Amino acid sequence: MKAEIITIGDEILIGQIIDTNSAYISSALNKIGVSIYQITSIQDDEHHILEAFTAAQSKVDLVIITGGLGPTKDDITKHTICTYFNDELVLNQGVLDHVAHLFKEYIKKPMLDANKTQAMVPSKASVLINEFGTAPGMWIENDNTIFVSMPGVPYEMKGLMENEVLPRLQKQFKLPYILHKTFLTYGMGESAIAERIELFENELPVAIKLAYLPSLGRVRLRLSTSGTQKEQVEAAMEEQAAKLLPFIEDIFIGYESDGAFEQVIARLFIDKGKTLAIAESCTGGQMVERFTAHSGASQYLKGSLVTYATQSKVDILGVDPEVIKEHSVVSAQVAEQMAVNARKLYKADIGISTTGNAGPLKGDSDAEVGTVYIGIATENGVTAHHFMMGNHRERVIGKAVNKALELLKEELLSK
Amino acid sequence: MKAEIITIGDEILIGQIIDTNSAYISSALNKIGVSIYQITSIQDDEHHILEAFTAAQSKVDLVIITGGLGPTKDDITKHTICTYFNDELVLNQGVLDHVAHLFKEYIKKPMLDANKTQAMVPSKASVLINEFGTAPGMWIENDNTIFVSMPGVPYEMKGLMENEVLPRLQKQFKLPYILHKTFLTYGMGESAIAERIELFENELPVAIKLAYLPSLGRVRLRLSTSGTQKEQVEAAMEEQAAKLLPFIEDIFIGYESDGAFEQVIARLFIDKGKTLAIAESCTGGQMVERFTAHSGASQYLKGSLVTYATQSKVDILGVDPEVIKEHSVVSAQVAEQMAVNARKLYKADIGISTTGNAGPLKGDSDAEVGTVYIGIATENGVTAHHFMMGNHRERVIGKAVNKALELLKEELLSK
Repeated sequence: MKAEIITIGDEILIGQIIDTNSAYISSALNKIGVSIYQITSIQDDEHHILEAFTAAQSKVDLVIITGGLGPTKDDITKHTICTYFNDELVLNQGVLDHVAHLFKEYIKKPMLDANKTQAMVPSKASVLINEFGTAPGMWIENDNTIFVSMPGVPYEMKGLMENEVLPRLQKQFKLPYILHKTFLTYGMGESAIAERIELFENELPVAIKLAYLPSLGRVRLRLSTSGTQKEQVEAAMEEQAAKLLPFIEDIFIGYESDGAFEQVIARLFIDKGKTLAIAESCTGGQMVERFTAHSGASQYLKGSLVTYATQSKVDILGVDPEVIKEHSVVSAQVAEQMAVNARKLYKADIGISTTGNAGPLKGDSDAEVGTVYIGIATENGVTAHHFMMGNHRERVIGKAVNKALELLKEELLSK
Repeated sequence: MKAEIITIGDEILIGQIIDTNSAYISSALNKIGVSIYQITSIQDDEHHILEAFTAAQSKVDLVIITGGLGPTKDDITKHTICTYFNDELVLNQGVLDHVAHLFKEYIKKPMLDANKTQAMVPSKASVLINEFGTAPGMWIENDNTIFVSMPGVPYEMKGLMENEVLPRLQKQFKLPYILHKTFLTYGMGESAIAERIELFENELPVAIKLAYLPSLGRVRLRLSTSGTQKEQVEAAMEEQAAKLLPFIEDIFIGYESDGAFEQVIARLFIDKGKTLAIAESCTGGQMVERFTAHSGASQYLKGSLVTYATQSKVDILGVDPEVIKEHSVVSAQVAEQMAVNARKLYKADIGISTTGNAGPLKGDSDAEVGTVYIGIATENGVTAHHFMMGNHRERVIGKAVNKALELLKEELLSK
């Protein structure tokens, strides 16, 4: 089964928002065996929406549409669906009751006329109740193509996908099994890896595709395949994965299916019963945010400090001002004291710290832009690592956090 | 001038990455007067790439292509461009010298054969030198349509856009002036705002479009217009903006052109010579990260603590354990102590704190999921604010940070 995603909304076309819905929908459909042929983003313009519907229907079996279902005048998707299918809007009592219920129980404001229009749906559509909002999803079958229309608000759309769209597709169709296996690597560039695994790549069966995905000092290698027999697909993948691994053993971090890298580390902390304290300077809270973005961080994360100003490193973290004077605030010595003292303050097993200059301007030290020191303290002592991470602020911070996570992993797996 | 953006890469179609490039390109082109007709994402598949090129050329004047220019076998954009334009790859000495230079000065590893192939470009293309990487940009004019191909790595693409593509477009074409003005509002839903500003919307000239963009407890209202005369366009916009403002004065935060909301607040801190200290619990570092994501935060941000575990609120922030016992760790009293003590610890003018339960599980307290207290301390005292923010972890955290920023703004603008 092939699908096209059509996202409707001027805000995407003028770059005011990033279209995160498409990535979620692609990933969710892919997992149940639907491959995405194309993602198309267009304006809230009737002519263009109709053109996109026609083009999509000629190419794919499933058209997923998001956006343009709000109660205000700039949203025209529902009317355009009626035009396309030669249909008309009719009142759906189930939706009206649901909207009234949402207003009474959650929004706790009187329902407006504009909200009532949310209950008007094309007569040919099956309604998909939107648990988290007032605009319903719609499912229309036409000449062997299924059109599904959902609101663009990400959590409403996700609720509809999980509760309605994915189960219906799985029930109605016998879908193939699509499998990806992604190897996270670090410390080696795309071309160098390609040269190293050339032999493997040349002997890869045509049914399995290899892709290189470089990002912030890491390259992800993805193997992809599909088939009707789950066991065969998995066996074929395992065979190739087992062949690839020896080529990259020294640069291999883990599989992407294990979750984000910080989740891999979180599990290591929990499994080993260890706790963490973080003291950040140049990374400005991005490291702790990576951990706390996932539920359950309180099981191993004692806490963190962002000591952005030099004086706060002295006052709160207890870094020795003489050491700062002698070595500068961006130094191995300061990174070490930050890690040691964060560990003590929070009574944690491991303390980790960052100090550096992410740019674009020089801060409280003369350190070159891109300089980063990472300190890591345990009951056995403390070490600091020095890095030069380029001159692009966002990337320096991202790379520094990635590197700190790698050091934590090495520490947790040592001995 | 109308443009289509074509992003090429399997990783987008399987949802492994979010396509952030399109939003950047759309915004950058929009600013110089190019409107985006469509964004199309497709796989690394020759047939499909050719089909997308043909469709785009029939509709727009400018086709911006990203992705598929890596040195590895899965990247086929360059060869497909040759097929489409009936062209062939030739060695470009300028690119070869640039690649050799990058390897010598920055990558500091020997250049591989795969890297040398980056210097092979279609003979009909003008080369755009990629300051930050080895894959050059390409500019090809064909039957009144311009095709520009760039690598998909975001910072390489941005460098090419800023240094090469935008200046060339502005030099070669007389582009219209596109203007957006976006009003940030809070505390009122989309439908209620629509009802309130109905009179304004009905009288809006057709040349000016109004859009509603809801997100995390806020609605943005965007007015858009364009024309050839900058002064006229600006005057027409100002006239409508002046009409809209009185309708929304009590729910208006600021204009989006002033930057992200935290940048508006950062400027207020700097202008008023005030400093900030942050103590976060349920927001887990997201508040401090919002501030430090922008350069220059050290001018007003003294530092922050994430005291995730209850014990660390006592040990490090000095919250009274009796108060925690009596009122629970998620309470107005604890939020107040956190704000007061963060302010003292960091010797800041304003201290702000969050404590709550973002879910999905209950943490160190019995507070219902979605409960958030925000404390704000100044030289004049301390107050705490209570909110119920729903049961969606990511949204609870996002809303809590937004709310904290609003409270900071109110504090900075008071008196």
